[in-house]
Amino acid sequence: MSAPSTTVFALDTWSRTRLAQVEQALERWVTADAPLGLDHGAPAALVEAMRYAVLDGGKRLRPLLVLAAHEAVAANGHGCPAAALRAACAVELIHAYSLVHDDMPCMDNDVLRRGKPTVHVQFGEASALLAGDALQALAFELLTPLDESVPCAVQARLCSLLARAAGSAGMAGGQAIDLASVGLPLTENQLREMHQLKTGALLQGSVVMGAQCANPTPQALAALEAYGAAIGLAFQVVDDILDVTADSATLGKTAGKDADNDKPTYVSLMGLQASQAYAQALLTQALDVLDASGLLDTVALRALADMVVNRAH
Amino acid sequence: MSAPSTTVFALDTWSRTRLAQVEQALERWVTADAPLGLDHGAPAALVEAMRYAVLDGGKRLRPLLVLAAHEAVAANGHGCPAAALRAACAVELIHAYSLVHDDMPCMDNDVLRRGKPTVHVQFGEASALLAGDALQALAFELLTPLDESVPCAVQARLCSLLARAAGSAGMAGGQAIDLASVGLPLTENQLREMHQLKTGALLQGSVVMGAQCANPTPQALAALEAYGAAIGLAFQVVDDILDVTADSATLGKTAGKDADNDKPTYVSLMGLQASQAYAQALLTQALDVLDASGLLDTVALRALADMVVNRAH
Repeated sequence: MSAPSTTVFALDTWSRTRLAQVEQALERWVTADAPLGLDHGAPAALVEAMRYAVLDGGKRLRPLLVLAAHEAVAANGHGCPAAALRAACAVELIHAYSLVHDDMPCMDNDVLRRGKPTVHVQFGEASALLAGDALQALAFELLTPLDESVPCAVQARLCSLLARAAGSAGMAGGQAIDLASVGLPLTENQLREMHQLKTGALLQGSVVMGAQCANPTPQALAALEAYGAAIGLAFQVVDDILDVTADSATLGKTAGKDADNDKPTYVSLMGLQASQAYAQALLTQALDVLDASGLLDTVALRALADMVVNRAH
Repeated sequence: MSAPSTTVFALDTWSRTRLAQVEQALERWVTADAPLGLDHGAPAALVEAMRYAVLDGGKRLRPLLVLAAHEAVAANGHGCPAAALRAACAVELIHAYSLVHDDMPCMDNDVLRRGKPTVHVQFGEASALLAGDALQALAFELLTPLDESVPCAVQARLCSLLARAAGSAGMAGGQAIDLASVGLPLTENQLREMHQLKTGALLQGSVVMGAQCANPTPQALAALEAYGAAIGLAFQVVDDILDVTADSATLGKTAGKDADNDKPTYVSLMGLQASQAYAQALLTQALDVLDASGLLDTVALRALADMVVNRAH
């Protein structure tokens, strides 16, 4: 069992420089100026909607997981910062597109996100649909630069991981189960499987993609897969807890929405106290696998796991 | 100037075996049975909508272009049929997802496609949205198999080409321009640019992806890029012609729809006769570049170009 070791590590300081890199890169890459060797620039109106969906928003948890996993593995050998930054942005583009489509009237019909009108409210439904579609494609563009900055074996591996994390056996599949399960009684196993796909796959995928930018040992890779699975699940358990314990202002979204929508949650299934204990157990599990990973520098990963579980919003 | 050389080549026979391969492969790969090394199977309901969108439908022009380009280049050297078949299916998945999203109420609001209810009519809008999203991800999954059947350099190149053909500077960008241009006067250059993105990028991408499965010479690659650009444009010119010359039964969709929707077309801009001459000139151009390609076996590519321009629907 791990003792908390995050107290001597300043996650804020560590995050600040990485977030600045990610924001700059997104600013540069989500653009109409055809920076990637394209023949045609992208239509300006479409790119405006894409930028609105991506820039200046969100905690950027997935990019931080990519970069932390890359740094942990790179400390043991040879990293590829160019690949890691691209992977960090790519997972954020997938996350951003999923929010755009999720907010649409035919899905959750949300009009506000992060205090701003959602993309379809701001630009219309057709533009939101296309912006989401184009963001997904752009994620794979970022992973396959035309220059020599990322070895092609890494490009292929990253595309493979991202496609599987995003697709029908990952995020999109989880959303389909979520849609179909409103008002239905789910067992804990069914609930866990739904969340493993819906949010867990991309969170775990972020960790594994970061690792794969730095040629991990099988031992390190297995440990990071387990770490990613644990925090992916913990993320959702904590989301369910916050939905009943936090107020809307703190959350930045409507609290109590799950219960109102008759959505099955960990809290509705296990109760609040057991859910809180479960989240802490998943944190312990995530930290324990890092201890056994053979990785020399896991402080950022440890601090991110702690943040996922002990966050207030 | 090329003489027509397609008369001695039986495109039907050539196509039949390739189409059978593609149908079998799509049947095998668009499935909930987690055949790609996934941890979780995809949710059955989502996969049902994906299969409905993809199987048993369409001319499969894009897959045939992939396979013909691959065979043409492979005749000069070393092909990779496993890569070509995956690329053929991947471009069809992108095409299929674009139709699903295009048919949705917020876009073209079509209720019938190929004589069947469209995906959102059959499964609901939310499922159509997610099925399209998952089909795009699956395209990239197909290009990045976990086994050793496709060299990673080819995987990376194919993902790069497909992402760019599908994204904001390709298909999605063209659809955005199309949406924004209804009722607006476009110049011929603006119309051409819109179509180069909307349909041309994926058609040309299909040709180039097929070529890239077989390590083309720079000369062959440049020729096939030019061939792809010419037939990509010709495809749209002919579409516009058929919209006014064919009846709905022959087309399998509503004829005269472009004029009804006040959409700019080649016919509305150039007139019917000039559009027909333009299509024939593009065919000649496509055949001429093949003559200069250094490729030994271009009969299938020549016959496909002829089919694109001289089709009746």
